[in-house]
Amino acid sequence: MSVTSNASSTESPDTDFRIDAGWIITMNAGNDVLPRHSLIVENGRISACLPWRDADVQFAHLPAQNAKDSILMPGLINAHTHLAMNLLRGFADDTPLKQWLENHIWPTESAHMGTSFVADGSELAIAESISNGVTTVNDMYFFPDEVAKVCRKAGIRATVGLLVFDFPTAWAGSTDEYFSKGIALHDACKGDPLIQTAFAPHAPYTVSQKPLERIATLSSELDIPVHMHVHETAFEVTEFVKAHGVRPIQRLHDIGLLSPSLLAVHLTQLTQDEISTLAETGVHAIHCPESNLKLASGQSPVADMLKAGVNVAVGTDGAASNNDLDLLGELRTAAFLAKLADGDASTLNAGTALRMVTIDAARALGLEHEIGSLEHGKSADCIVIKPDLGMIPVYDAQAQVVYTNSSPCVQDVWVAGKPLMRNRKLLTLDAERLYANAARWSEKIAENANLN
Amino acid sequence: MSVTSNASSTESPDTDFRIDAGWIITMNAGNDVLPRHSLIVENGRISACLPWRDADVQFAHLPAQNAKDSILMPGLINAHTHLAMNLLRGFADDTPLKQWLENHIWPTESAHMGTSFVADGSELAIAESISNGVTTVNDMYFFPDEVAKVCRKAGIRATVGLLVFDFPTAWAGSTDEYFSKGIALHDACKGDPLIQTAFAPHAPYTVSQKPLERIATLSSELDIPVHMHVHETAFEVTEFVKAHGVRPIQRLHDIGLLSPSLLAVHLTQLTQDEISTLAETGVHAIHCPESNLKLASGQSPVADMLKAGVNVAVGTDGAASNNDLDLLGELRTAAFLAKLADGDASTLNAGTALRMVTIDAARALGLEHEIGSLEHGKSADCIVIKPDLGMIPVYDAQAQVVYTNSSPCVQDVWVAGKPLMRNRKLLTLDAERLYANAARWSEKIAENANLN
Repeated sequence: MSVTSNASSTESPDTDFRIDAGWIITMNAGNDVLPRHSLIVENGRISACLPWRDADVQFAHLPAQNAKDSILMPGLINAHTHLAMNLLRGFADDTPLKQWLENHIWPTESAHMGTSFVADGSELAIAESISNGVTTVNDMYFFPDEVAKVCRKAGIRATVGLLVFDFPTAWAGSTDEYFSKGIALHDACKGDPLIQTAFAPHAPYTVSQKPLERIATLSSELDIPVHMHVHETAFEVTEFVKAHGVRPIQRLHDIGLLSPSLLAVHLTQLTQDEISTLAETGVHAIHCPESNLKLASGQSPVADMLKAGVNVAVGTDGAASNNDLDLLGELRTAAFLAKLADGDASTLNAGTALRMVTIDAARALGLEHEIGSLEHGKSADCIVIKPDLGMIPVYDAQAQVVYTNSSPCVQDVWVAGKPLMRNRKLLTLDAERLYANAARWSEKIAENANLN
Repeated sequence: MSVTSNASSTESPDTDFRIDAGWIITMNAGNDVLPRHSLIVENGRISACLPWRDADVQFAHLPAQNAKDSILMPGLINAHTHLAMNLLRGFADDTPLKQWLENHIWPTESAHMGTSFVADGSELAIAESISNGVTTVNDMYFFPDEVAKVCRKAGIRATVGLLVFDFPTAWAGSTDEYFSKGIALHDACKGDPLIQTAFAPHAPYTVSQKPLERIATLSSELDIPVHMHVHETAFEVTEFVKAHGVRPIQRLHDIGLLSPSLLAVHLTQLTQDEISTLAETGVHAIHCPESNLKLASGQSPVADMLKAGVNVAVGTDGAASNNDLDLLGELRTAAFLAKLADGDASTLNAGTALRMVTIDAARALGLEHEIGSLEHGKSADCIVIKPDLGMIPVYDAQAQVVYTNSSPCVQDVWVAGKPLMRNRKLLTLDAERLYANAARWSEKIAENANLN
């Protein structure tokens, strides 16, 4: 919808409004930060961005959101998570990855896995995500059909993972069933304005060559991304080499999976040659620093990847290994680690870092024409951050968003022009119900694990 | 005051009350976490800790604070900060330490330094500290008399640093004046229940041998700690060796400053021998991981120091190099880094980590008999953390406090039984005034720096 088409209308639909912001962090190609500007939203899309005084003249007819003491920026994109794992947040903490998965997480998931676990866990995670300014999630978990349902209900944008394992799980009993259920879900999401799908083979050590070849073919045919854990720990790489004689990334390359369709998550173990290969093939690296630290998995060479030209986005991983879905906090950790690794405080500056949870993450998901920056024609996925006593003064809006604890200052959240949170009140989810659900599940899970 | 002395009284003073908590994180020697317990506070001190049902019988006469869905724990101790630097938060970010100090921070400080800068900056920082659950600060800055005044007004507990430099600053024109002003302030604070002092020689490269010798003697005579930046960067160590032929820690050892009175801050550059020396001499290490990362200064070998038996506390450093005073976030970063450095997810588990901002920090400040744990006879410095959607479910209260973004969930804060924050509303400071002050200062500072 053009700027002028609605200008003479006397009644505006709910998705037509303006936000008058103290600073607009655009995340456009020049990383422009515009002080005292208004964002104009018409029919859920951005139609203009101009100084307050001009907005007062040209868009006086639109309802105005007053964010004059606040920062407006694109909604955040969490490039890797397992939403439903919020129900296992803090379960068996301070345990090494292999033991954590094999002795705690996997048995507990097996005991409780089903549509209701996934629906309740995902809903809790989406509530937390929205309250932290996240407007798009890239999820990988069992029962992705439930995940899609809950995202739709909450109004959040999502890429749901069509999970594939070599072994049977509660979601599918055979390789064929993983594919048939996945493709059925993909078909069901066609035309959905907010939900898209990606293949989600768990990892090279849990999905063998044949299904990976099938995924390479199908992802190309269906034109959807492939979302996969790759080189998370040194142990898994060593074991893979023992079993197959090549490193997992080489195997993926041989299969043809290294391409701009691949979102490779974690990447804590990379040779310089592998970094070059990722850059040449256009693979997107998804960096989850806090999960890697908490599980002592290692540190992804982000500064080196950026120098090589690899596109890097950031994800929180699931809440069970983090323990929160605070994406701006995750980004802060990413920036800090890159500076230390590089020995240079100017490495991964605030503006560059912010791209990793906005426009560069959008690019990884193939959504860069729709979201990731506040530019004309894009969907109005945006958030207002109101600096509290821990964020002032504001000399540099981008630095304050990245380097302070800014997530609790996220005040308002819109997806496609629809408000999901106003003044920190969730509008599409029932918070009281979420507290009750979490308490009910944790009692059940703890009882089952003989923790009580 | 004993438990029974007040039991029959019909009127309780304001500092007599009970808090009924879902979980009490005691930070006692056994790191006990007590579910469904009440903390009894009489005359500002902890007189008992017992199950709700027993409190209902024995302490029915005391006003009860309902925190039955919340976590009660000792108030946090920020073991290293420069409060007033909150006014420079985000000023000249993404700049290496030397350049940041010499081209930005020090010239700006020189241009604006004075009682009003320190009073306004400290007040803003204390407000932020309280809202993050900090009840004790160990500060080092110019005009420590102003810092003491503001702390007293706010009701926060503080160790104020008696600053010493070799060169003149706005606070003192000569070495003698640093000492005379420092000792005058020390005398003025005598008998103050909440304010104590420490000598605060800035660093081995800014304070020469003679004043350091004087500090060694005086700190022993006055029985106060010494608070000093030590081995913050590789550069400063190399330069010191060039100039003096020994590493700074050796110089401090020769002077007799390595003792349980010393709080050595940063310590990113340590040999194994130096770690042993710190352990043998009883020096307290103050770890500021986020400042070290943000300025790319290096990483303190915390896991190695803990193994060697060094007492480690955590500080945020000033907000200008962090950029927040979120001590629980700082602790999360500390735990994550130690796990990675050690290659073991069980290193620095949540319970051990929490000691570094409570009882072990109290020990560093010589206050372990007064604060740092919720035990009989200690001062009622405590906080209530109410888990929000980003902290539930709670399987393990300590893990959730450390590994989630828990600071914004700090609900209530008491120091010596006096409430400083209730339901996130500050009671001793005027938030509106702080916003106005910060805006005024940042305009002035930015204008002066030609940033506008």
